[in-house]
Amino acid sequence: MTKTDVLIIGGSAAGFVTAMTARSNYPDKSVMVIRKEKKTVVPCGIPYIFGSLESSEKNLMPDGKLQEMGVNVLVDVVTSVELDTKVCHTKGGDDISFEKIVFATGSIPKIPNWLEGKDLDNVFVIPKDKEYLDSISEQLNDKQNIVVVGGGFIGVEVSDELNKVGKNVTLVEVLPHILGMVFDEKMGERAQNILQARGVTVKTGHGIKAITGQGKVSGILLDNGDAIEADAVILSMGYEPNTQLAKSAGLATNRFGQIDVDEYMRTDNYNVFAVGDCAQKRDFFTRRVTPTMLASTACAEARIVGMNLFSLYTTKNFKGTLSIFFTALGDDGFGAAGLTVAEAQKQQLPAFGSIFEGVDKHPGTLPNTHKQIVELVVAKGSGLILGGSVAGGPSTGELVNIISLAIQNNMTVYDLITTQIGTHPLLTAPPTAYPIIKAAEMAMKQLHK
Amino acid sequence: MTKTDVLIIGGSAAGFVTAMTARSNYPDKSVMVIRKEKKTVVPCGIPYIFGSLESSEKNLMPDGKLQEMGVNVLVDVVTSVELDTKVCHTKGGDDISFEKIVFATGSIPKIPNWLEGKDLDNVFVIPKDKEYLDSISEQLNDKQNIVVVGGGFIGVEVSDELNKVGKNVTLVEVLPHILGMVFDEKMGERAQNILQARGVTVKTGHGIKAITGQGKVSGILLDNGDAIEADAVILSMGYEPNTQLAKSAGLATNRFGQIDVDEYMRTDNYNVFAVGDCAQKRDFFTRRVTPTMLASTACAEARIVGMNLFSLYTTKNFKGTLSIFFTALGDDGFGAAGLTVAEAQKQQLPAFGSIFEGVDKHPGTLPNTHKQIVELVVAKGSGLILGGSVAGGPSTGELVNIISLAIQNNMTVYDLITTQIGTHPLLTAPPTAYPIIKAAEMAMKQLHK
Repeated sequence: MTKTDVLIIGGSAAGFVTAMTARSNYPDKSVMVIRKEKKTVVPCGIPYIFGSLESSEKNLMPDGKLQEMGVNVLVDVVTSVELDTKVCHTKGGDDISFEKIVFATGSIPKIPNWLEGKDLDNVFVIPKDKEYLDSISEQLNDKQNIVVVGGGFIGVEVSDELNKVGKNVTLVEVLPHILGMVFDEKMGERAQNILQARGVTVKTGHGIKAITGQGKVSGILLDNGDAIEADAVILSMGYEPNTQLAKSAGLATNRFGQIDVDEYMRTDNYNVFAVGDCAQKRDFFTRRVTPTMLASTACAEARIVGMNLFSLYTTKNFKGTLSIFFTALGDDGFGAAGLTVAEAQKQQLPAFGSIFEGVDKHPGTLPNTHKQIVELVVAKGSGLILGGSVAGGPSTGELVNIISLAIQNNMTVYDLITTQIGTHPLLTAPPTAYPIIKAAEMAMKQLHK
Repeated sequence: MTKTDVLIIGGSAAGFVTAMTARSNYPDKSVMVIRKEKKTVVPCGIPYIFGSLESSEKNLMPDGKLQEMGVNVLVDVVTSVELDTKVCHTKGGDDISFEKIVFATGSIPKIPNWLEGKDLDNVFVIPKDKEYLDSISEQLNDKQNIVVVGGGFIGVEVSDELNKVGKNVTLVEVLPHILGMVFDEKMGERAQNILQARGVTVKTGHGIKAITGQGKVSGILLDNGDAIEADAVILSMGYEPNTQLAKSAGLATNRFGQIDVDEYMRTDNYNVFAVGDCAQKRDFFTRRVTPTMLASTACAEARIVGMNLFSLYTTKNFKGTLSIFFTALGDDGFGAAGLTVAEAQKQQLPAFGSIFEGVDKHPGTLPNTHKQIVELVVAKGSGLILGGSVAGGPSTGELVNIISLAIQNNMTVYDLITTQIGTHPLLTAPPTAYPIIKAAEMAMKQLHK
């Protein structure tokens, strides 16, 4: 029987950060990560394996850091966990006893049961699995016409990367715009135009009905009857929590299939934690359970688990999950944090958008200046910042993080308009027209009406 | 006699934003800007006139926006202001009566009185004056060896730009490192190495003693006796508030020569405001008067003035001036917000630095990945974030703004470690090693020791 103080199942972002933080905060405790992959891919880097990175070998989690911190890594598959006796069994025949256990089992691609043709050859999904991904890369080499189904971030990024290496790519999305879950119309439209200008064919407003072919894929059918030819189909229709093992161990899950946890990611059994895509998320604004899955959220949760395994070392609680997304198409960045106006309205939160269009350098005559558009989503009455989105250049990601920090500090537009920000010709918008401040200023005028 | 409700003296960043905000908040009031320049240069863009922008014509404040907002612009020089009778006289012979007046007269380059040779031909300074700047650009055309005196941001940027267009540039700084006022040693050293690698000769640790030459410059002498040959010398030895006019009008100034104002930029006479480089600044942490001069600060103040000219429309007060600087040398960005460890210690504020070195994309094997180094300056005991500095790529500016927002929200390292941030392969550090969070994590461990 192998013994470890802390056992973490899963070696992607959540498991990795939990292990590192645990060793850092509890240097006297032994920490073991069990994962099925010999090498683990960086999850958010996966779409770039198909283009910018050339190979999954350039997209690996740094195992060296785990070794440096003294984390034990076991490559094996967990077959069952006995929570009462605190023992875990593996396919390789190991029995491992533990004091604390952390489920960091992630998520797996969703494939609708009703989808005819889903088992044909050359129909792929995008899991966080290096061997599978390497095999897709290989198999796509001699395919030219590729249909990607699902215009969320992963579908968009995979389409753009395959287009970059010369494939003929069609992206299909059922909503009126790509990225429709995270952007209000204007931003979604902008992203879509850029993706099309880069050469990807985008078909929105109709979903997939069936995949066609004999033995192997020959195309897809849309719900309006249109047919699209394809040598390969990539399904990017969302992910679901990977919680079979947790359920077998007797842990409760919610209606999204996430493992029930409290603010400190503890199940009802304080020796058992869940973290990342497999764990319950509560919305930042309403505290309702929400199906958000993001590596950045997973890492924030993992730091909390790693610090609080043996006692609530940091009594700071987690305010709920804030969706913070961004991506880039070439030099053009897009992103959002918090609620869109549409989503706020769905939550019965009266809100309005305030948009300012500027530039990401100043004067805008400088080389490589990008348009920089910021929309703030503001609560009527209080002026609280509920969300925001950004379209701009290479600084888009950190600009979204500025908005997300404003949300997490419960800032209002009144706070923002007197906030001091730094500016520089080569790095930001001008001080006279910094887009977050200008959007706040316009929102304030709207509130005073 | 011309009449205006609001009269603003000065048309650079502070005057511009005051005018725009005033018209936006008080659409029934007439607003006039008097400035001496026919066209006004964007202040922070000035160094780039010498290289990246080719001409000052590409670095102009957008007068069209003033017109759109209905701001009246008068190009003239104010000779005196009578505060009792509320009348202003100009060189052009105009008498202008006003209800509210705003001094936005900016700053002028400092030239030490003791500096021998300062009146020789081809000795230049960098004022915010388009005609003067155009004339320097012209005169530098046939000069090859240029000495820049003063290694603050402006000296560094001007050196880099002149080097870019093929000049032989030597930068002289009396402190041990360039940018020594805003960076602790490590960051200053890094910036200096990059500037040198780009071809600028940097001499630190010794100040200028005299400028040599007969009629025109032939070189400079350092205080250690070294001589450097030069066809032209550019003095970038700081700026002082331009307050002669305000003093003549009877306004009080402090020991830095700044016009005395309260939190709302009002003098003792509530009809008289001062804003920007000519106005008093109080430090964010100690509320002591401080000689900070930044366009970004000026713009934050200008929004406050513009909103509160006729009553305190927004009761949010200004927490004091936070220094937020950043710059770029090619693709490498550098910046800082708040206090350095050295400056905190000078203020008797026990503090320590926590440095994390990462990358600005992930995996770091992606093309154009930069090193990204973040230092947080943390108060001993409370863990309050007092400052921070960043060396990285194109997102450096907004990353510094994230730190500045954390400071302005009185965040501690305990708050930061559970803050949710977004990440993306092409736009930020990885979620497992986001440098601000990692530096906070390391600082927390230090606090727990």
